[in-house]
Amino acid sequence: MRSNGRKNDELRPLNLSTHVNKYAEGSVYIEMGETKVLVTATVDEKVPPFLKGQGKGWVTAEYSMLPRATHSRNQREANRGKLSGRTMEIQRLIGRALRSVVNLHALGERTITLDCDVIQADGGTRTTSITGAFIALSIAVNKIAEQHKLNVFPITDYLASVSVGIAGGRALLDLNYEEDSKAKVDMNLVMTGSGKFVEVQGTGEEAPYSRSELNDMLELGEKGISELIARQREILGPIADRIGTAGSRSGV
Amino acid sequence: MRSNGRKNDELRPLNLSTHVNKYAEGSVYIEMGETKVLVTATVDEKVPPFLKGQGKGWVTAEYSMLPRATHSRNQREANRGKLSGRTMEIQRLIGRALRSVVNLHALGERTITLDCDVIQADGGTRTTSITGAFIALSIAVNKIAEQHKLNVFPITDYLASVSVGIAGGRALLDLNYEEDSKAKVDMNLVMTGSGKFVEVQGTGEEAPYSRSELNDMLELGEKGISELIARQREILGPIADRIGTAGSRSGV
Amino acid sequence: MRSNGRKNDELRPLNLSTHVNKYAEGSVYIEMGETKVLVTATVDEKVPPFLKGQGKGWVTAEYSMLPRATHSRNQREANRGKLSGRTMEIQRLIGRALRSVVNLHALGERTITLDCDVIQADGGTRTTSITGAFIALSIAVNKIAEQHKLNVFPITDYLASVSVGIAGGRALLDLNYEEDSKAKVDMNLVMTGSGKFVEVQGTGEEAPYSRSELNDMLELGEKGISELIARQREILGPIADRIGTAGSRSGV
Amino acid sequence: MRSNGRKNDELRPLNLSTHVNKYAEGSVYIEMGETKVLVTATVDEKVPPFLKGQGKGWVTAEYSMLPRATHSRNQREANRGKLSGRTMEIQRLIGRALRSVVNLHALGERTITLDCDVIQADGGTRTTSITGAFIALSIAVNKIAEQHKLNVFPITDYLASVSVGIAGGRALLDLNYEEDSKAKVDMNLVMTGSGKFVEVQGTGEEAPYSRSELNDMLELGEKGISELIARQREILGPIADRIGTAGSRSGV
Amino acid sequence: MRSNGRKNDELRPLNLSTHVNKYAEGSVYIEMGETKVLVTATVDEKVPPFLKGQGKGWVTAEYSMLPRATHSRNQREANRGKLSGRTMEIQRLIGRALRSVVNLHALGERTITLDCDVIQADGGTRTTSITGAFIALSIAVNKIAEQHKLNVFPITDYLASVSVGIAGGRALLDLNYEEDSKAKVDMNLVMTGSGKFVEVQGTGEEAPYSRSELNDMLELGEKGISELIARQREILGPIADRIGTAGSRSGV
Amino acid sequence: MRSNGRKNDELRPLNLSTHVNKYAEGSVYIEMGETKVLVTATVDEKVPPFLKGQGKGWVTAEYSMLPRATHSRNQREANRGKLSGRTMEIQRLIGRALRSVVNLHALGERTITLDCDVIQADGGTRTTSITGAFIALSIAVNKIAEQHKLNVFPITDYLASVSVGIAGGRALLDLNYEEDSKAKVDMNLVMTGSGKFVEVQGTGEEAPYSRSELNDMLELGEKGISELIARQREILGPIADRIGTAGSRSGV
Repeated sequence: MRSNGRKNDELRPLNLSTHVNKYAEGSVYIEMGETKVLVTATVDEKVPPFLKGQGKGWVTAEYSMLPRATHSRNQREANRGKLSGRTMEIQRLIGRALRSVVNLHALGERTITLDCDVIQADGGTRTTSITGAFIALSIAVNKIAEQHKLNVFPITDYLASVSVGIAGGRALLDLNYEEDSKAKVDMNLVMTGSGKFVEVQGTGEEAPYSRSELNDMLELGEKGISELIARQREILGPIADRIGTAGSRSGV
Repeated sequence: MRSNGRKNDELRPLNLSTHVNKYAEGSVYIEMGETKVLVTATVDEKVPPFLKGQGKGWVTAEYSMLPRATHSRNQREANRGKLSGRTMEIQRLIGRALRSVVNLHALGERTITLDCDVIQADGGTRTTSITGAFIALSIAVNKIAEQHKLNVFPITDYLASVSVGIAGGRALLDLNYEEDSKAKVDMNLVMTGSGKFVEVQGTGEEAPYSRSELNDMLELGEKGISELIARQREILGPIADRIGTAGSRSGV
Repeated sequence: MRSNGRKNDELRPLNLSTHVNKYAEGSVYIEMGETKVLVTATVDEKVPPFLKGQGKGWVTAEYSMLPRATHSRNQREANRGKLSGRTMEIQRLIGRALRSVVNLHALGERTITLDCDVIQADGGTRTTSITGAFIALSIAVNKIAEQHKLNVFPITDYLASVSVGIAGGRALLDLNYEEDSKAKVDMNLVMTGSGKFVEVQGTGEEAPYSRSELNDMLELGEKGISELIARQREILGPIADRIGTAGSRSGV
Repeated sequence: MRSNGRKNDELRPLNLSTHVNKYAEGSVYIEMGETKVLVTATVDEKVPPFLKGQGKGWVTAEYSMLPRATHSRNQREANRGKLSGRTMEIQRLIGRALRSVVNLHALGERTITLDCDVIQADGGTRTTSITGAFIALSIAVNKIAEQHKLNVFPITDYLASVSVGIAGGRALLDLNYEEDSKAKVDMNLVMTGSGKFVEVQGTGEEAPYSRSELNDMLELGEKGISELIARQREILGPIADRIGTAGSRSGV
Repeated sequence: MRSNGRKNDELRPLNLSTHVNKYAEGSVYIEMGETKVLVTATVDEKVPPFLKGQGKGWVTAEYSMLPRATHSRNQREANRGKLSGRTMEIQRLIGRALRSVVNLHALGERTITLDCDVIQADGGTRTTSITGAFIALSIAVNKIAEQHKLNVFPITDYLASVSVGIAGGRALLDLNYEEDSKAKVDMNLVMTGSGKFVEVQGTGEEAPYSRSELNDMLELGEKGISELIARQREILGPIADRIGTAGSRSGV
Repeated sequence: MRSNGRKNDELRPLNLSTHVNKYAEGSVYIEMGETKVLVTATVDEKVPPFLKGQGKGWVTAEYSMLPRATHSRNQREANRGKLSGRTMEIQRLIGRALRSVVNLHALGERTITLDCDVIQADGGTRTTSITGAFIALSIAVNKIAEQHKLNVFPITDYLASVSVGIAGGRALLDLNYEEDSKAKVDMNLVMTGSGKFVEVQGTGEEAPYSRSELNDMLELGEKGISELIARQREILGPIADRIGTAGSRSGV
């Protein structure tokens, strides 16, 4: 039995609210246990310089934690004058993951920025950000689709993310901070609605892991992600039916 | 009649929730109409270098807006690598205002940092931050007082803040963004529970204002602030009775 | 009696020299007692990006202290790699104050930058900068008016600034550093030739102040500013007559 | 057949020279095909602040590319004033990977910094850096062991890294730049001499991948890494025999 | 004949005023023609970390131009967030030159910082800064010598600097901006009272120069510097007699 | 006799290899004794903003040392977030020196950037960089000349550089690190194939030097540079014959 009485393959309670910001084109507030993230999606009718004139769009993300999202207060990155390596790594991951399920040509010359701001952190902030960002993105893309009468709905598949790990000799799903800090192996998975991998990132800094441990973690992750995607479908309601109708994504 | 049907001397609806963060020593979520701010108070058992060995504490503040707190998205200051002049001006104001009602000697060699993060902005983010920060500060100070059995409760008076302005030829209380952007004069007031001024900051960049206009604004502000302080008393409950028992503040 | 034998409502000796820089479109060297500031006005025949194509101009200011302007040497902001909050606050104030008396449409698509460099500081550097900058600005605007045969003289009124405070239980005009460091309340006033307020900024970090103390300070300030404006008129000579002929300012 | 006539499971030609820097405690120059990296190991007899007084050491890495390591010249990060997200991600990876095979307690209170400078880039610069850095690290650790007569040799296992990917429908080992830019999936593997995983990082931004494709890539990677480790053993000569005698690593 | 009617070997008019700053331990205002520099010397009773505990002192310099010291306004380095290469080169030169005539052991564990702020620039700002800084330094060192009853006066020789160049086929002394911008060769010389070289920096970016042209420039420079040193002696009055009594400088 | 048995006027062994980088338009690896520098020349078919539309090109340089190029490891400038004064001074020198032998009009609207990366440092890194950069530049310019059928070959003369100094009472040519750190005077010379000076930079921070010492150093430098230029001719082969055919350089 895990702390909080969860089973090894059990997710933390998930709460989702959409349309939580009056200005953003898409927004969601997501709680995975005590991890709380606010995600807004902003649509900008232009693309970054490296994409100009190519007839396709861009999806990118920024990630930040409020100073007191954690046990002890963290200095703001704005005060240090630069982003930490951890922040950059996470926001690159979120953007890359979301782009894997967006047909950038169908999106047209627009940029969607997902701002993932962690209000409170208790493990799994990057995976929770991805799961939430997919919802905010879908709402924003739907708004574009309706306003601009796009022929094709640009989101090609569902996408969610979860962490898995090895702690106390067993594979665990969706680690909270306490479990994470004791884990010997830490893995983040991002998968699509069709069960394919978008990201597999497993680190055994404390202890290298075997092929069979890797397989155990992948199985837990697949189970958790399919549950998360079921919840995404539910909250997206009618938008859910449009996802994946675009066929496969083209172009980066 | 103002937009939203408010009278000239009427505050926007105020919502307050305390203890909204599981790690912070004090926290409050405050809504003034559509302006929404999360404030956490962090206690650190040391003081900045310039105060070392003087037997007294420090209170300071940081202020930030989430990128999509506003109509159009703002670039994060962490990305620009520095704080804007506006941010610095606001956080200096918040810290200074709070220190005016804290007996820093009674606080002892501790620093309390108030993080004011604007979740959504609709005018008056700095004044709302101050009103909220006073509550988070009081909760955190009360926790210190209980843990360390302080002889004197270090908060010497109540403190709240509101904006006033001149728009369409009349003085208005608590301007929202739409009113603020049309106002010819913009004034922020910070006052104590005993009705004294801590900050008067009135700017007539668009149109200089007369002594009688100044007086009209000061009167509206006094009314609004006394209403805000009544609400602070209410939500602080038993802590409220300890405020002001320390006598006047000594030292900076 | 104050140190140096001044009366409570007495300004420090004021010295002014104009045309002190061979390159600048306007320049003034101003001494208020031992506070010494060099101000240059630079005219640039373009406007910042946010004003492009609107047919109007801009007035902005920068403020800096030489490292040894003060008792102990201050590190240069260029070495720290960023401006302090204090510097940004002051230069925003100077720019805003000057714009309140400039008809930006009459100025045309030009930017005037006022550089206020404090050679020696003894209290009141920001107010002295504003009083001096108005002169440098007027000289530079006059040069533009003559070169470009403007129909309307873009400066709509006089502008000067002074500090007031409460120290030792009495309201004092134009505090020097020694008085300022003992003052319980510190207020900066910016007013026009027609006696209206452009900025009222009063801070009672050490001790909140009453409405009647506020009134005392405002009265001292009005007296001091009218004396400063009389001196501005004198030194501007023939330019003085053109000020205010433009009628009220339009636009930001 | 691949460009250059390699088989799908064939590494590029590997060249290694050690002791290429007269000052560094360990150094290696490594060529994987046209990718050329210079790695130096620097031993510092102290640890970073967060490790002080814990009786254990630290291993960290820095990564950089010379401006003309690539087809077109890249601006130096020293000129941009900050490290890119890519650089930070890579150097965090290298350091983490190396620490997984170092017994930090056996190392004692010392820091070893691996500087990986890419002289020429043709795909796989991060994996080549890891494979080379392990050699430079081993030489430096051996020097410490000899000088300080350590009881235990602090390196617990071999470590090497290679990239794999899916391109043109097949899994490929050790992609060069041309192959990498066409690959739909890009995976970096870091493994130990005992065949365990230290890092699995597979990204399908262009096209999500199935579990069976993941398995194909893992197998290619295992083969490649075991060949690289054989070459490491060879070049390390007598040092090779000491690796892994320390038993499992303890502590971060 | 040169513009302004100077002869080829003629300095511009030199004006010097000392004690121009009420706070600094030494100060001088120097005008070489239209080039105007304010120099203050600040004494700090400690040394930089790299000199701690060695029983000797340090002399360093900072250099800056006011934004409108030049024909067109320059952006402040504090706004750009870093010093330009030109500024760094100049302040390194000034510090190095001054240290060449200071016995750092006789100075004791103190740092003297020379701030050279160019009020107006018309060529030769770095050489004028050095000539002026020597005076401010001497005044400050004399103050230390008197307060601390130093056995040995730490300044070992006089020091002054001038620019020379080749323009229109002739060698010229002390170029103003107009001459400098037309010169094919630009050389800065720093020499001691005993006629030795401390710095020879001659650049022929526009046109390489011959050994005989080099000799012509050195001769002009020697003449100019001996005239400048005569003026330094004069203004330093009784301090002048103490210079050089320490014997040769020891130690960096 | 010097350490290593060199005579006072003897250069260290010089090794040169060209075409060491597969991407750069010109490249050279140069060893002067134990000082090792990799130089690449990058051609960019545009000019910096200040040269736009003037029909001429630009040559510029960047200089950097690998962290372990020296006895003890240096922090990377990319980590410190800015270039040191030393680096800026050196790269300004290299660029300026090279431009003195390039006819920028004949080059056309192109920029050539010389990247000088010091792999190992043992004194004379800036002079070795210049000597090597001239070779890389010549190769790159020759490539342009062939591709664009330039009428005039833009390099007007040879260029090389060496250090000289005074140590132990004698003038020495081409100091290594050990000699340099003991030298009382340190001088860098840059000269052309026709024996003219491009840069003379001699610093006597430790001990001012006399005119006759200056002459001794200049003579050693002339001898050393003529030997270096002989080696440049040799390695450039057929390109060597085109150098200087353009006549004198016009324009900066």
